[in-house]
Amino acid sequence: MWDEEYDVVIIGSGFAGLSAAIEARRLCSSVVVLEKMAVPGGNSIISGGLFAAAGSPLQAQENIDDSPELMLADMLAAGHDFNHRDLAGIVAEKSAETLQWTIDELGVKYRPKLSHLGGHSVPRTYNTANTSGSGIIRPMLVKCREMDIPIRLKTFLSQLITDESGAIEGVAVIEDYIFPNRESGIGKRIRAKRAVVMAAGGFSQDKKFRAIQNPMLTEDIECTNHRGATAESLIIALKAGAIPVQLSMIQLGPWASRDEEGFGVGSMFSMLAGFPYGILIDLRTGERFVNEQADRKLLVDAMLNFDRESIAIVDEMGVRHASTLEKCLKRGVVRKFDTIEELAIANQAPLIPLKATINAYNALIEKGRDDQFGKPLPKDLLPLKHPPYYSIRLISKVHYCMGGIQINTRAQIIRIDTQQPIGRFYAAGEIVGGIHGASRLGSNAITDCIVFGRIAGGNAANEPPRP
Amino acid sequence: MWDEEYDVVIIGSGFAGLSAAIEARRLCSSVVVLEKMAVPGGNSIISGGLFAAAGSPLQAQENIDDSPELMLADMLAAGHDFNHRDLAGIVAEKSAETLQWTIDELGVKYRPKLSHLGGHSVPRTYNTANTSGSGIIRPMLVKCREMDIPIRLKTFLSQLITDESGAIEGVAVIEDYIFPNRESGIGKRIRAKRAVVMAAGGFSQDKKFRAIQNPMLTEDIECTNHRGATAESLIIALKAGAIPVQLSMIQLGPWASRDEEGFGVGSMFSMLAGFPYGILIDLRTGERFVNEQADRKLLVDAMLNFDRESIAIVDEMGVRHASTLEKCLKRGVVRKFDTIEELAIANQAPLIPLKATINAYNALIEKGRDDQFGKPLPKDLLPLKHPPYYSIRLISKVHYCMGGIQINTRAQIIRIDTQQPIGRFYAAGEIVGGIHGASRLGSNAITDCIVFGRIAGGNAANEPPRP
Repeated sequence: MWDEEYDVVIIGSGFAGLSAAIEARRLCSSVVVLEKMAVPGGNSIISGGLFAAAGSPLQAQENIDDSPELMLADMLAAGHDFNHRDLAGIVAEKSAETLQWTIDELGVKYRPKLSHLGGHSVPRTYNTANTSGSGIIRPMLVKCREMDIPIRLKTFLSQLITDESGAIEGVAVIEDYIFPNRESGIGKRIRAKRAVVMAAGGFSQDKKFRAIQNPMLTEDIECTNHRGATAESLIIALKAGAIPVQLSMIQLGPWASRDEEGFGVGSMFSMLAGFPYGILIDLRTGERFVNEQADRKLLVDAMLNFDRESIAIVDEMGVRHASTLEKCLKRGVVRKFDTIEELAIANQAPLIPLKATINAYNALIEKGRDDQFGKPLPKDLLPLKHPPYYSIRLISKVHYCMGGIQINTRAQIIRIDTQQPIGRFYAAGEIVGGIHGASRLGSNAITDCIVFGRIAGGNAANEPPRP
Repeated sequence: MWDEEYDVVIIGSGFAGLSAAIEARRLCSSVVVLEKMAVPGGNSIISGGLFAAAGSPLQAQENIDDSPELMLADMLAAGHDFNHRDLAGIVAEKSAETLQWTIDELGVKYRPKLSHLGGHSVPRTYNTANTSGSGIIRPMLVKCREMDIPIRLKTFLSQLITDESGAIEGVAVIEDYIFPNRESGIGKRIRAKRAVVMAAGGFSQDKKFRAIQNPMLTEDIECTNHRGATAESLIIALKAGAIPVQLSMIQLGPWASRDEEGFGVGSMFSMLAGFPYGILIDLRTGERFVNEQADRKLLVDAMLNFDRESIAIVDEMGVRHASTLEKCLKRGVVRKFDTIEELAIANQAPLIPLKATINAYNALIEKGRDDQFGKPLPKDLLPLKHPPYYSIRLISKVHYCMGGIQINTRAQIIRIDTQQPIGRFYAAGEIVGGIHGASRLGSNAITDCIVFGRIAGGNAANEPPRP
């Protein structure tokens, strides 16, 4: 009946899946990670590598007063209080110790300076040294190798197998699967002696499924995710009785470049330099129209989803914070100009209003307070007047699914008809719904994925083994 | 194996279920309606009996220019474009002929004057003669009796039964069910020779389920619905593979009374008189704060969900439109005052700002345009200065679930893994998701329920009979 058997079977090899695997393997003797794509790391490996933590060493060093309570309050504000507060509270509470775990256990390298991302009350975001999620995923993969955890690529979850009590007993998979060809590969059944962990990510690239939840997200709307960010595993979990939570809450990223596909290199440029140290301009008017450091939902709403053509502008002083600058310039995603006049001409922006906007903004900086839009000004912010100037053309792209399936604080998946946990069935990461409510704050995804990945993995490994 | 057999089995006896039954029975020889509660009519029978139709006889009589296109545009605006546009378009397109059907086929009596509800561009709302959904449900029940359609009360859907192809073959039910006692009653299996129609309504009273979707809707928040508006059938449909659509979009009604439970009599007072012919006042400031005729979501947002204490005020001329006035006064839901001074004292409103607000509002009426909040002023609106004056204390209550399961334009329920219809399985009414997007316009529910109830019933009856 079964082809193979492991204590814990994990679906997905991103932050949540690999964290779960590492934690589980500490507590039991065999763990396997199943990944449908031909490469490991899912969407995590192409992410920006930003990690939000409340009460971190860098915050202490920079004299930044923060707490899990403040981080939770920021999450609830951005989430419009749609958040499942018990879960969100755990993310905030465990953020700093989990960051430390990535340093101590995995050897992840971070830059020595915090970033202040939109919607966070204070700077609390660590950047991986290589400005990429690969800076965490690669050490995780090394750790998995050391711990003898196989990562089985091109292995697609086709079915969950339950025992007579309704608990999950194993999975049917397709090996040698060529995504997205449902005819490819061959079937196999893998038994989970203790539990199965769903860490299969979001569905931002699933154009049909996302349009059912939000019909405005038509096929032509771009996405920052890798192409494997589709809904198959979510659907399998729902069919097993998991509760759908807030599936229509799908986040657009306001910082992506119009001049490259996907997440690219421009997104990090905007997040780290353009928005905190520069200004966001409506190309028709030459004016600012929003607090550039607002949370993503507020920004996208202000950009009218796709109707308002906008650019971010930053100068030589601000651009120092953009770790992806070289690549951005090489790919033509960011352009460099000696004068504002040249920048205006190249972007077809009205020059006189643009200059007036910059003068007004510089006056705000001198005053130390943005009376106009309430942007929190970085301590080291200087007036925008140091050439050369840089611009990036922006467009909103589908980025993250706040919705997913319901778990409890132990990361157990809840059954829709009984509201009790489904036996031996856990989830973590983007496939979980409700933690971020209506809008996730930037750099909270990695924290969430690793916090709940470890909880899921630990609890899965602690299930009593089946005979 | 089966205890009974009908061509079409319908779950739920509200507008959608009874419309489906009547339409199905025209086309096939046996139809049964199963209702879990001890009385028929579900939430429909306690609704306000408002029917929106574009291009109706009363509109022609009152020279109101309307069209299905305009009605659809209003639905999309209120729905923030989250609407499943193909389905919303059908509701608008068929609204006038469906209204006529209730008159010609059922003999429903309507008042001779249209109402203009918030968010609609023009007056297009018919009122039943008795200002209640019972004015439609009762004639439907009479029709069912004439057509020999049994309405089986206290009959709870406990399970769907599928055949080997995955199509729905029948239902397991509990007879003599005492809602909500899951231990009550006895089981029976009813075969559907042609199809099953899910018309089981929304889940506004399901406090646990609704809080998963919107955690702000805590147990203490009141609801306008009958207590049977719970999620059991929705959950059964989801377990059968139906696609969850926008379940977190749950509407609060901004017009309900703080001084009675549920929908009561105050809701219609506000909808028909207080909002169109009166003003909405913040009790702390004595000022207006919103277009009283905005759609429900905008109103509830402006009322800060539950934080802003507000009242509606209307005078002797405006109150003529309130068909529930007598009951409201008798129950103390609406209070009557000879002067604004007395009204202010009784409501603890600041008198001087309140008088200034009324004067400013009356000046807008004289001018014929609400420059302040853009409220569309009824043609027969007079200045608010004709004593006695009436006030109602408002509080937002959970009213309607925009979310539900996905159907196609033939009312077939779609399967989540294949995105193809589930065989012999239809749905209509509030259990369907996506038609109204983020916010349903008042008086569009009855239209939607009857339009899609008839489509579902007709298509269910046209399925080839099983041998």
